[in-house]
Amino acid sequence: MFVGALPRWRLCRRQGTAECAGRSTRTRGGAVLFACGDDASVSSRLALVSNGLPGRMALEVAQAALRRGLELVPFSLTGERTATAAVECTARDDTTGTERSVQVQLVRPAERAQLATKLKKEYPNVICVDFTQPQAVIPNAAWYVENGFDFVMGTTGGDTSALYQMVARSARYAVIAPNMAKQIVAFQALVELLGREFPNAFRGYRLEVIESHQASKLDTSGTAKAVVASMLQSWGITGFGGEQDIQKIRDPALQVSRMGVPESCLQGHAFHTYRLTSPDGSVRFVFQHNVCGRRVYAEGTIDAVCFLDRQRRAGADQKIYDMIDVLRSGGML
Amino acid sequence: MFVGALPRWRLCRRQGTAECAGRSTRTRGGAVLFACGDDASVSSRLALVSNGLPGRMALEVAQAALRRGLELVPFSLTGERTATAAVECTARDDTTGTERSVQVQLVRPAERAQLATKLKKEYPNVICVDFTQPQAVIPNAAWYVENGFDFVMGTTGGDTSALYQMVARSARYAVIAPNMAKQIVAFQALVELLGREFPNAFRGYRLEVIESHQASKLDTSGTAKAVVASMLQSWGITGFGGEQDIQKIRDPALQVSRMGVPESCLQGHAFHTYRLTSPDGSVRFVFQHNVCGRRVYAEGTIDAVCFLDRQRRAGADQKIYDMIDVLRSGGML
Repeated sequence: MFVGALPRWRLCRRQGTAECAGRSTRTRGGAVLFACGDDASVSSRLALVSNGLPGRMALEVAQAALRRGLELVPFSLTGERTATAAVECTARDDTTGTERSVQVQLVRPAERAQLATKLKKEYPNVICVDFTQPQAVIPNAAWYVENGFDFVMGTTGGDTSALYQMVARSARYAVIAPNMAKQIVAFQALVELLGREFPNAFRGYRLEVIESHQASKLDTSGTAKAVVASMLQSWGITGFGGEQDIQKIRDPALQVSRMGVPESCLQGHAFHTYRLTSPDGSVRFVFQHNVCGRRVYAEGTIDAVCFLDRQRRAGADQKIYDMIDVLRSGGML
Repeated sequence: MFVGALPRWRLCRRQGTAECAGRSTRTRGGAVLFACGDDASVSSRLALVSNGLPGRMALEVAQAALRRGLELVPFSLTGERTATAAVECTARDDTTGTERSVQVQLVRPAERAQLATKLKKEYPNVICVDFTQPQAVIPNAAWYVENGFDFVMGTTGGDTSALYQMVARSARYAVIAPNMAKQIVAFQALVELLGREFPNAFRGYRLEVIESHQASKLDTSGTAKAVVASMLQSWGITGFGGEQDIQKIRDPALQVSRMGVPESCLQGHAFHTYRLTSPDGSVRFVFQHNVCGRRVYAEGTIDAVCFLDRQRRAGADQKIYDMIDVLRSGGML
């Protein structure tokens, strides 16, 4: 039954070898299923470039790749002014249980041409992951497209419209998504779906929204804004003004006492609570999604990489995807 | 836009008169929209019988009908051994703001034939609502069908299969639903939908389920069991054994301290909390639906009555409905 639920996975009995470098799940019969990287030769294996090192999200992605048994390319695009020359990426491989470590060289803009040549030669099945800077979105995407690299774009704040147009004109496959945490994307999709399927199901309900992020985040949570917009559009909520009514908690003491943020997560968290109360106060719904750190985004990114690899190997007509597409494909963590 | 969203509602400018007995909503232009009971003559108005008085749910339904401006028939089917002769039902009409009160006579099985004759003559557009006893489901449904009354069956525990067959063989319209709280039904539908649309989106997550009901409820919450079954089927949850792992809170002190149940609701509440935690503990989702008292079920029942009235007036082919159908129609609270 489990095998049937994951029809795209290929059965493999040689765990931990070069031909089985993907994330594995042992079935009852002892066979092992791999999500990606299941090609036989090293040269055609799926490899991942995590661009944006030494940035924290790029590092998370590199570590998640190592955990999931993917081949991490020892090069990463970085900015002109990065002082570091290399970053050591280390994680325990979930499949083999052994610690894996890759020294990743940082490649500045002037050295990109040589890197492209090297990647094309040594990693024909590469996928680039981009967690860089808003101003790098278009130049990086241009580099991917020109050199024939499929990619996952997690960097936000760039010119999304230009990005879509560039990919649409090319023959490249890409996942472009502002939020790689697929469980949160699923929640957002459901909020929208509820309004579409069951309009006004919460007619007259009052809404209260509280979000907490690290004190350095000045603006209101984009996720909260998107969720609230969906609710206001068709749930039938009354008396909520929009963004200005979303309560932002940025005071660490309040984050701990009121939101239950662990002290170890004060520097990096995304906690959201939505409370809905019926007009007479007798019914209350609460929805919470609380994230510490960045690991969930990196895990979703690896799902997106594996998904993209399957789509291109299948020669899919659709070229540009988002996390909803990844979710629909079956969730490959 | 609001008018467009409720296409079946009819525009009426004489609020509070016999021809406008439905629940109203004032539009920006000052026009008033009515959900049901919008026929011109008293004899053809939608009327509601709340069977099962003096039972608490039947009383809630009668009060909700008065709040929503529906005509409450002053008779109610009751059991052979009911000692009471009549029940005073009182509520403030949401539309007119005035208190309405109806003295409802309780009708024992031997007097049913006369009641049927009276209803047919004086309330040609009646809909019967049934919150009675499991053993009354089939005899009551037979009475509705034989006498040509459409009905909403909220009584659970009867022979549902026989009930469906009986209605299917008849020309009657019916809403049959074990849970009339449409927001909770919407939540249950979404839980199922998430698994279907995004299989394994919560792969590897741990689940914790706690439910609290009045101390007199001995069995596990049926809603919790249904939600858990949906989650286990396709969310990718691991390590949850099923019903035995649902934590039942029946101790009033714990209900207050741990679940936040107001003391005034200890005798009648349904609180549910589902917690999902990612394998590494960095992500947590919480879903809660907390109900005090029975009002939400009665409100949903009135929605079902109004929905059924619209369906039969439109001559719909489908005859048997559930709360999902009511929800899809647009939520008529």
